[in-house]
Amino acid sequence: MSLNVVIIGAVAAGPKAGCRIKRLLPDSSVTMLDRDTYISYGGCGIPFYVSGDVADLQGLTSTSFHMERNPAFFKGAKGIEVLTGTEATAIDRADKIVRAKNLATGEERELPYDKLVIATGSQPFVPPIPGVELEGVVPVANLHHAEAIKNAVAQGQVGSAAVIGAGATGLEMAEALADLWGVEVHIFEMAPQILPGLGDAEMVRMMECHLAEQEGINLHLAAKVEAILGGEDGKVRAIKADGVEYEVEQVILATGYRPNSALAQEAGLELEANGGIKVNRFMQTSDPDVFAGGDCVSLTNIITHQPMYIPAGSLANRMGRVIATNVCGGQATFPGAVGSFCIKLFGLSLARTGLNQAQAEQEGLNCVAPLVVQADRAHFHPDNKLMYLKLVVEEGTRRVLGLTALGENGDAVVGRVNAVAGLLAQGALLEDVSNLELAYSPPLGAAVDVLNAAANTCENMLAGKLRPMSPQEFSRRLAEGVGGNTVVLDMRAIDNAKPFLECLAPQWCHLPQETLTQRLDEVPRDKDVVLVCNSGVRSYEGQVMLDAAGIHNTYNLSGGVAAVKKWGEPILPVKDGEG
Amino acid sequence: MSLNVVIIGAVAAGPKAGCRIKRLLPDSSVTMLDRDTYISYGGCGIPFYVSGDVADLQGLTSTSFHMERNPAFFKGAKGIEVLTGTEATAIDRADKIVRAKNLATGEERELPYDKLVIATGSQPFVPPIPGVELEGVVPVANLHHAEAIKNAVAQGQVGSAAVIGAGATGLEMAEALADLWGVEVHIFEMAPQILPGLGDAEMVRMMECHLAEQEGINLHLAAKVEAILGGEDGKVRAIKADGVEYEVEQVILATGYRPNSALAQEAGLELEANGGIKVNRFMQTSDPDVFAGGDCVSLTNIITHQPMYIPAGSLANRMGRVIATNVCGGQATFPGAVGSFCIKLFGLSLARTGLNQAQAEQEGLNCVAPLVVQADRAHFHPDNKLMYLKLVVEEGTRRVLGLTALGENGDAVVGRVNAVAGLLAQGALLEDVSNLELAYSPPLGAAVDVLNAAANTCENMLAGKLRPMSPQEFSRRLAEGVGGNTVVLDMRAIDNAKPFLECLAPQWCHLPQETLTQRLDEVPRDKDVVLVCNSGVRSYEGQVMLDAAGIHNTYNLSGGVAAVKKWGEPILPVKDGEG
Repeated sequence: MSLNVVIIGAVAAGPKAGCRIKRLLPDSSVTMLDRDTYISYGGCGIPFYVSGDVADLQGLTSTSFHMERNPAFFKGAKGIEVLTGTEATAIDRADKIVRAKNLATGEERELPYDKLVIATGSQPFVPPIPGVELEGVVPVANLHHAEAIKNAVAQGQVGSAAVIGAGATGLEMAEALADLWGVEVHIFEMAPQILPGLGDAEMVRMMECHLAEQEGINLHLAAKVEAILGGEDGKVRAIKADGVEYEVEQVILATGYRPNSALAQEAGLELEANGGIKVNRFMQTSDPDVFAGGDCVSLTNIITHQPMYIPAGSLANRMGRVIATNVCGGQATFPGAVGSFCIKLFGLSLARTGLNQAQAEQEGLNCVAPLVVQADRAHFHPDNKLMYLKLVVEEGTRRVLGLTALGENGDAVVGRVNAVAGLLAQGALLEDVSNLELAYSPPLGAAVDVLNAAANTCENMLAGKLRPMSPQEFSRRLAEGVGGNTVVLDMRAIDNAKPFLECLAPQWCHLPQETLTQRLDEVPRDKDVVLVCNSGVRSYEGQVMLDAAGIHNTYNLSGGVAAVKKWGEPILPVKDGEG
Repeated sequence: MSLNVVIIGAVAAGPKAGCRIKRLLPDSSVTMLDRDTYISYGGCGIPFYVSGDVADLQGLTSTSFHMERNPAFFKGAKGIEVLTGTEATAIDRADKIVRAKNLATGEERELPYDKLVIATGSQPFVPPIPGVELEGVVPVANLHHAEAIKNAVAQGQVGSAAVIGAGATGLEMAEALADLWGVEVHIFEMAPQILPGLGDAEMVRMMECHLAEQEGINLHLAAKVEAILGGEDGKVRAIKADGVEYEVEQVILATGYRPNSALAQEAGLELEANGGIKVNRFMQTSDPDVFAGGDCVSLTNIITHQPMYIPAGSLANRMGRVIATNVCGGQATFPGAVGSFCIKLFGLSLARTGLNQAQAEQEGLNCVAPLVVQADRAHFHPDNKLMYLKLVVEEGTRRVLGLTALGENGDAVVGRVNAVAGLLAQGALLEDVSNLELAYSPPLGAAVDVLNAAANTCENMLAGKLRPMSPQEFSRRLAEGVGGNTVVLDMRAIDNAKPFLECLAPQWCHLPQETLTQRLDEVPRDKDVVLVCNSGVRSYEGQVMLDAAGIHNTYNLSGGVAAVKKWGEPILPVKDGEG
């Protein structure tokens, strides 16, 4: 079989589809066009180019064997014709022709196709802020932007910078500027948290504290940027947010991405409400001879079965492969996505998959999502670090809905999330995570892995044996002081409890868990009692013991003092090395 | 409900079950007995205690909050009565009584039970070798052994040691002795490979090369140990294997473990042929009031549905939890195990789950299992290391059967294996791994993750598009030289190919993949042609191109030169930093 295939877009889904089409049907003719001159690059690597982790742009445009993925490479190694600097201006579906224009020469041409692949990607959303057109205001969407930003900082022109938007790109750019280049960074985010729409608020708060308190990033959350102000030279000089002016020499727009779907829409193809091109499981658009994939399409959320939009190079590559199979007559399917995500910032990594608690509740799903804190490998192994997990499980059905994890060993954090991502797509239940057979050896895991422990904690909560209190609520209650309705019962050894008792007694009391049954009469009955230990395990045991003794006015602090420390509340006199 | 529960064995499954029983039914009475005085310890941590990673034995017997798990702790914090130094001598199932004997005083007592939990663990297999009783010959089964070995090396008494058995324990002990203490270590293994029964031979070979060539461990494979020889002082002085004497001051027996099931058998409970106690999914023995879990039971292999024996603290803990739920009237199930395993040796980690190729073939399952080599995160990120994967997929059904992974970033290696472990238990298909949504960010993953790539490679092989050759077969063919029936076609750039050409031409030829279609007439037709690149990706493309041109006498070197290097064949003039 010989096919004439045209591919619009040559960054991720396009090249992936094209190369595989040539492998499946070597006799086919594949033409790929892109309006940019940079093609087939790792756009997710831009922050790492700016930070210097990736020394030059070729790092992002080359194969792992250092061959630049330019049109000559695609021609020689892949048998694909690539037209760069060439924009697709229209799709004539009736005659099966793509009209294209060379942006340099203005020359127009027609490209006939048997099968068409639309992989037009996304474009940065530019917010309607006065001054957004000033010199020194740059989005993060392609390698030209990357070069502009890196050149500016490398030449020492940037002492301070503003990043508008605290999604993944904004945060990674903030790290890149602050960490290597010592730039003073302000992040402005409209939402009350970083990673809005992605991160569980409680988990994300730990990352926020890390960025702000450990790394000196100026986080402005729930912030309204009113204007970007220019100097007499026409360059940016300040940003004005909530009435305050911040002097900056560079503004990075990281306010999200929108699907490039106008061309498809003009051709009469259906879009979803999120603006992405509508595709079926075979990645066909509403025209079966036209496929679409990558950042330009709307995806199905495998858990909610609702449309969602996730621009990501990894998904684009998986879609490109499925498209190739089906263009060549196969029946591969792309069922959608569960929404796996990860980010590493200054040595702290956060990963997530599926729905977080807020998202589940928005979907009308009742769920439990206790915070669990435990070492990421054998607690006696010197490499261990605490990992913070929130597994989300639906009440009633016991279906697993999602997981968020945070910790210093990034590969370990992502490893847990990837294991749950696979289970989510299978519609797995809580018991599948309780029994999940994570490989165990002291340097690489724990006999009761933190992920198994998170599932067990969910089960305890569903069984009504665990009544948790979040670090957020705990901090609020503690702030009420002795006049409030809450007493803290510290169940740890006296060495751990002492500094808290010194500062916070009589609201903070001490009763080691192993002495509890002998000292039941010391448990306050007239207020809510929050049971506290380092990680929430001993205090859970305390709660069970007190329930058995008929004392039910208790809550268990989720994640214990370790979580509150990570949460960054200054009210506790926390010392280093404790927890 | 109040229950009288007796638990025999207090290391892993026993304490786990006991503590949860007390949480589920606080009014129950739980008595736990153990013939040892050390209880509730992390036996898997013994090599790390010997190595010094864990400073003292308390590290292995304490909670994460540094409280020693001794009888007083179990009494105070858990409400469990523990009898140490007390051996269960018989189970009278008719009268529901355990007979026990205090090993120090000889005192005998009867412990009545409503429900009994047998968690008697395993014991080291002591091979019938002359001299095995000599002073200085120690198995690795409990903390007394750990102390004996560490004391001997710490006192400088051990210049060289022999480890008999190259399973996980033997290898970890070898590292512990060699790495920190500088002991000259000989490992003797009956099988022709390390990790017999666990490791895929090809993957394990890479670890063997690492141990032998990088770390100076003396590996004696397919070795027959004939005797352990003593000096006049009655202490070990040498080991004799295959007719050769090796002077050693210490011999460590690491020849596997056998279930401690005699007590159960004497009580008339059914055993499996592997010697483990037979249990159902609820962890009940053939007597429904008697539960058993941990190293003393036989497990069901979830993939083959056959009985298997895996002693592991992680499985013991999961079983203990299920037992507790069911002792208390619940209906939790433990479906069996897929056989997840990991080990970290001198900075190189190997992990596996499910069946390897040989095991699958033993079960009569036709499968593909190509070796795939790729960076474990974005290839442009400076932290990337090569990861070596073998995914095993059944032909016809496309069912995923197992995965073995190897690499330097241990958490990343284990993360991939854990993700597949969860899928195995769900009976997932190849497509589930192709589309597995691993979270992506350049420092933590790749846009096309190595695990997705392994699945894609399996698919290409099942589709008949990839004809691989293993590094082992490649080395054999190469050794035949120009007189043999094999020509190598190096598809890399000349810089990479040059040193090979200099040494191995005319058997080693050069034809860069991107020039292939123009130079088809240079491809040898009279011999088998092995296509070679760094990792096997370009050479796969070359194979597809040649097939399209009607040239089918080709094989693709799996994993490329990177795999052969890791394989350690000295025939190639490999230089550092290449690949």
